Amino acid sequence: MTQLTTRRRAMAVVTIAAIALGVGATMTWGQADRWYPSRWGAEDQRGAANRITPAKVMQAKDLIRQGRIYQLGRVYEAGMPLPATRHYSLHIPQAYVTAGTNQGIYHDEVVSAEIGQVGTQFDGLGHFGIGELFYNGNRRADFATPGGLTKLGIENVGPIFTRGVLIDVAGLKGVPQLAGGYEITVADLKAALTRQKVQITPGDVVLIHTGWGALWMKDNAKYLATAPGIGLAAGQFLADAEVVVVGADNSAIDVSPNPNPSLSVPVHQLLIARNGIYLHENLATEELARDSVYEFAYVFSPLRLKGATGSPGNPIAVR
Amino acid sequence: MTQLTTRRRAMAVVTIAAIALGVGATMTWGQADRWYPSRWGAEDQRGAANRITPAKVMQAKDLIRQGRIYQLGRVYEAGMPLPATRHYSLHIPQAYVTAGTNQGIYHDEVVSAEIGQVGTQFDGLGHFGIGELFYNGNRRADFATPGGLTKLGIENVGPIFTRGVLIDVAGLKGVPQLAGGYEITVADLKAALTRQKVQITPGDVVLIHTGWGALWMKDNAKYLATAPGIGLAAGQFLADAEVVVVGADNSAIDVSPNPNPSLSVPVHQLLIARNGIYLHENLATEELARDSVYEFAYVFSPLRLKGATGSPGNPIAVR
Amino acid sequence: MTQLTTRRRAMAVVTIAAIALGVGATMTWGQADRWYPSRWGAEDQRGAANRITPAKVMQAKDLIRQGRIYQLGRVYEAGMPLPATRHYSLHIPQAYVTAGTNQGIYHDEVVSAEIGQVGTQFDGLGHFGIGELFYNGNRRADFATPGGLTKLGIENVGPIFTRGVLIDVAGLKGVPQLAGGYEITVADLKAALTRQKVQITPGDVVLIHTGWGALWMKDNAKYLATAPGIGLAAGQFLADAEVVVVGADNSAIDVSPNPNPSLSVPVHQLLIARNGIYLHENLATEELARDSVYEFAYVFSPLRLKGATGSPGNPIAVR
Amino acid sequence: MTQLTTRRRAMAVVTIAAIALGVGATMTWGQADRWYPSRWGAEDQRGAANRITPAKVMQAKDLIRQGRIYQLGRVYEAGMPLPATRHYSLHIPQAYVTAGTNQGIYHDEVVSAEIGQVGTQFDGLGHFGIGELFYNGNRRADFATPGGLTKLGIENVGPIFTRGVLIDVAGLKGVPQLAGGYEITVADLKAALTRQKVQITPGDVVLIHTGWGALWMKDNAKYLATAPGIGLAAGQFLADAEVVVVGADNSAIDVSPNPNPSLSVPVHQLLIARNGIYLHENLATEELARDSVYEFAYVFSPLRLKGATGSPGNPIAVR
Repeated sequence: MTQLTTRRRAMAVVTIAAIALGVGATMTWGQADRWYPSRWGAEDQRGAANRITPAKVMQAKDLIRQGRIYQLGRVYEAGMPLPATRHYSLHIPQAYVTAGTNQGIYHDEVVSAEIGQVGTQFDGLGHFGIGELFYNGNRRADFATPGGLTKLGIENVGPIFTRGVLIDVAGLKGVPQLAGGYEITVADLKAALTRQKVQITPGDVVLIHTGWGALWMKDNAKYLATAPGIGLAAGQFLADAEVVVVGADNSAIDVSPNPNPSLSVPVHQLLIARNGIYLHENLATEELARDSVYEFAYVFSPLRLKGATGSPGNPIAVR
Repeated sequence: MTQLTTRRRAMAVVTIAAIALGVGATMTWGQADRWYPSRWGAEDQRGAANRITPAKVMQAKDLIRQGRIYQLGRVYEAGMPLPATRHYSLHIPQAYVTAGTNQGIYHDEVVSAEIGQVGTQFDGLGHFGIGELFYNGNRRADFATPGGLTKLGIENVGPIFTRGVLIDVAGLKGVPQLAGGYEITVADLKAALTRQKVQITPGDVVLIHTGWGALWMKDNAKYLATAPGIGLAAGQFLADAEVVVVGADNSAIDVSPNPNPSLSVPVHQLLIARNGIYLHENLATEELARDSVYEFAYVFSPLRLKGATGSPGNPIAVR
Repeated sequence: MTQLTTRRRAMAVVTIAAIALGVGATMTWGQADRWYPSRWGAEDQRGAANRITPAKVMQAKDLIRQGRIYQLGRVYEAGMPLPATRHYSLHIPQAYVTAGTNQGIYHDEVVSAEIGQVGTQFDGLGHFGIGELFYNGNRRADFATPGGLTKLGIENVGPIFTRGVLIDVAGLKGVPQLAGGYEITVADLKAALTRQKVQITPGDVVLIHTGWGALWMKDNAKYLATAPGIGLAAGQFLADAEVVVVGADNSAIDVSPNPNPSLSVPVHQLLIARNGIYLHENLATEELARDSVYEFAYVFSPLRLKGATGSPGNPIAVR
Repeated sequence: MTQLTTRRRAMAVVTIAAIALGVGATMTWGQADRWYPSRWGAEDQRGAANRITPAKVMQAKDLIRQGRIYQLGRVYEAGMPLPATRHYSLHIPQAYVTAGTNQGIYHDEVVSAEIGQVGTQFDGLGHFGIGELFYNGNRRADFATPGGLTKLGIENVGPIFTRGVLIDVAGLKGVPQLAGGYEITVADLKAALTRQKVQITPGDVVLIHTGWGALWMKDNAKYLATAPGIGLAAGQFLADAEVVVVGADNSAIDVSPNPNPSLSVPVHQLLIARNGIYLHENLATEELARDSVYEFAYVFSPLRLKGATGSPGNPIAVR
């Protein structure tokens, strides 16, 4: 629809994005003026999931020493925190009675929801973009169809079985919960890692414990209104660390609101669109923090919902 | 609604079930005349998931030697095989544009479906019953409410990380696909295990490869019309082996139709209701069979959908 | 499931209902000890809709003297008042582009809702019962199936084109709005009719203006918490008047809460189950009241949703 | 997205549309080179519904002489003819039991569907466009949002109570059913009107009986594959006649496929986008044709679904 050439369009968007994202003298983008094609090639649809290699699986497996599993997913239920534009409805229809003399009877459940974007949710690469451009420079109009995304759908991700690292920023600060709107800094992340005596390695999943998750189903309005979380600087630190997924016990990974009032969840753009890194939101990290479990096997296998933007699920940490 | 006492009702149902299920001289139920309370107590809601112990996790972990992951879940998509009473609908709404100058734009997906009972599905203990009685003797009227099951919901299961065993019955027979309606026998299972040089241990997940899955999205009508699968005898063999889950590359685990025309999917009742064992249907077992992967770590973490009867998902086999 | 004979069961239920509904010395049921079969026969599924005859259509038609139409239905929208168990979700998917050179492009909408029981809603005969018994003595287990009601579904009603009467009780009292919890009396109805110089004739639709509707989308919490409305006495008066539908500008027609704290919306049972009279809830009656339109042609044609319990819609009053 | 000025864009689109729609020497568009703003002004959102005046209501009312009502809407049910991209799902959840001693129990229904675009459906002005332009020149990007259309939504239409005319083209031809793909001509319409001794007057609703509706739920595949219907010439004739709605007993009003293989349902564009005239599809016209009812009061009150593209319903013909 526009008459600009592809190259000129890309440049224009980068310029706009750079300004909009507050890129200044102290901020370095990984691929500042040219964020696509991706490092995995122009046709890639999996982004950082490419970092899941047999070696990472083996690294994660070696962290399993006690056989203990932590559930990181919250329960999906009516009344859970949801943005106003989303819904979640589950009903049990009348029972079905089977033919036969063996008295078969069964229940199904009927669910209507933005199923990949409610509760504990894993954001895929087709979820969030910069203007009309998504991961790997895909133009929205080229893959967003009414019946599903024809590129970047969640079915492309594949299972994630890798080393997980918890960064307990609340623990670092000695508080049960960071304040809403607190932007976690790079220094925070580094200090917490030092305190925990762990390091991030490429291909890891990093989960951030802010303590905000304690509000889940306790004070949903507060849970949604604001949140502590990372901003662009900490996001870039994690992107540079070549992680696969960034998760947290808040609703958007991003600090909310962003201290720069002109920005709305820019970490989504930085990680998902520019770096192909997935977000795992609304996680239950409290038990890991309580038990000082800072290294573990993180296992999550997204639902293969063709053309979906994200996936629900119950990721696990195993040690 | 009935005036019978609880004890008399239970007895009456057992009698009816025993007759209906074709229990005769050659058939031995594990708990013939009294199938509840469950071996895990009258209050238990997790059934065979109780067999997932740290020791089982460690046993499974030790099977991971190459770091290779097999996806066992099929893609959820419009047009996949579905019984007439179920539906699956996914749409991508118009894009949302965020506030802020950073050009945020995102997609959600709206899904309506019997989400735990379509495609690759994991049947929970609230799904299938015998008359009005479900696992652990729970009466349907006591837990089936419009907004969800108040007992036996899928959120109770917890993650399953255990040893998995593939039983390749098609391979045993030297055919790519067993015939529709073929009832897999106990002898088949034993012979296949012998051929594969593996044994079932308590707490394992057993997956049966029939070859029927090759019809998925190729000939959906045929896929649904009949299927090779296990009957009551093989089901009892697996129950006696104290497995956690029985999966297969067909739509119901049960042979379909049952050779006894008066029975409709009785294995559902035997395994789910009487033994608390889960079913994993519509699995993609073809790659495991192709690669002769008979032992592996099976990992599946059901969606914690409060009060749901089952869970979708993408279980994995790791070796 | 019960061993009682049909006749004994019916008697037992009547007794229970009579007690439960607070039937005492001052209360007379139309069909006190035997409320089914219905006056339209044991097989009837339409109840008071049988009162819509060509003569009633002609009577209504003759009330159309100015050609002015009043919309009585409220807008269905996100954020409208809903009980906690119900939902309403509408999304516009990405546009569909047609084949052909004529640039065809179109939108659909995807809606998930208890579509006959949200917003302006018309309660059918399969919606509300007394214990296990519904209109015409139908037992719930005999017609409530997962895919729809096999009896009493809304598709049986047919179009309603008849004389409508507005009873402006708020106007009678000289207030813009009756108080929440106020039970409209028979005397109120009679006095309002006298004041308005209109009478109810058999086969009419009666709409009650309480003023409560002014809270719609203005103070939804208050709108739902309580409401002025009719109780059993006024309901019986309307049943005796042989109306077809009772509507109001509140959420349940019934006064809420019922002054008798042991009763929950008993008018639903009296009118729907015992008398086959339909309810039309959440109506917009304010313009009729404002213009003193007390007689009109009421036209409503329920959606023919097979097996549904009710219907949404935009009923009209024409004068 | 385009850099063209508004005026230049409009002209360009008109040119493209004129070519695409096969406008030639023998074809005259009502507003050939400038189809917007609409005749009802640049801000109008109701199109031909503006033709519903008190005078039209009175004209229609005078056609009611017998008090007989014909239902023109088909039953919405699982298994009805649907294009592959749409779905319809209805379930009855487990019953709700109310508080109180009066044994209240009720059912709802949960429906998921493209509710305004399945079964008997009334296409609104936001449904179909020409490229990015819809009725009154509204650009799609300006009103299509994920939560509903912000302009041209079906809630703007208002009730339609007007004179209806049935044009029985099958009757004219002396056949029970026109052939699939037959394009109804202007001459057909004129000859049928002459035969029936009726004329179209401005503000009427015109229903076309093709006989194709006899396939509904009898041979759904055939019903959907092709259809007799009107093309651009007959559509223009009806637009020039200043009707409000064009309905038919087929799925698209348009002949299908269009004899010009490069065109896909162009009558949608001609009537909806260019002329603000509504379409009423999948009507049950057989009883009107059987009884030679050629003039009647047509009454249809669209559901006020905020931001929806169409409405389901059960329109009626009264005589």
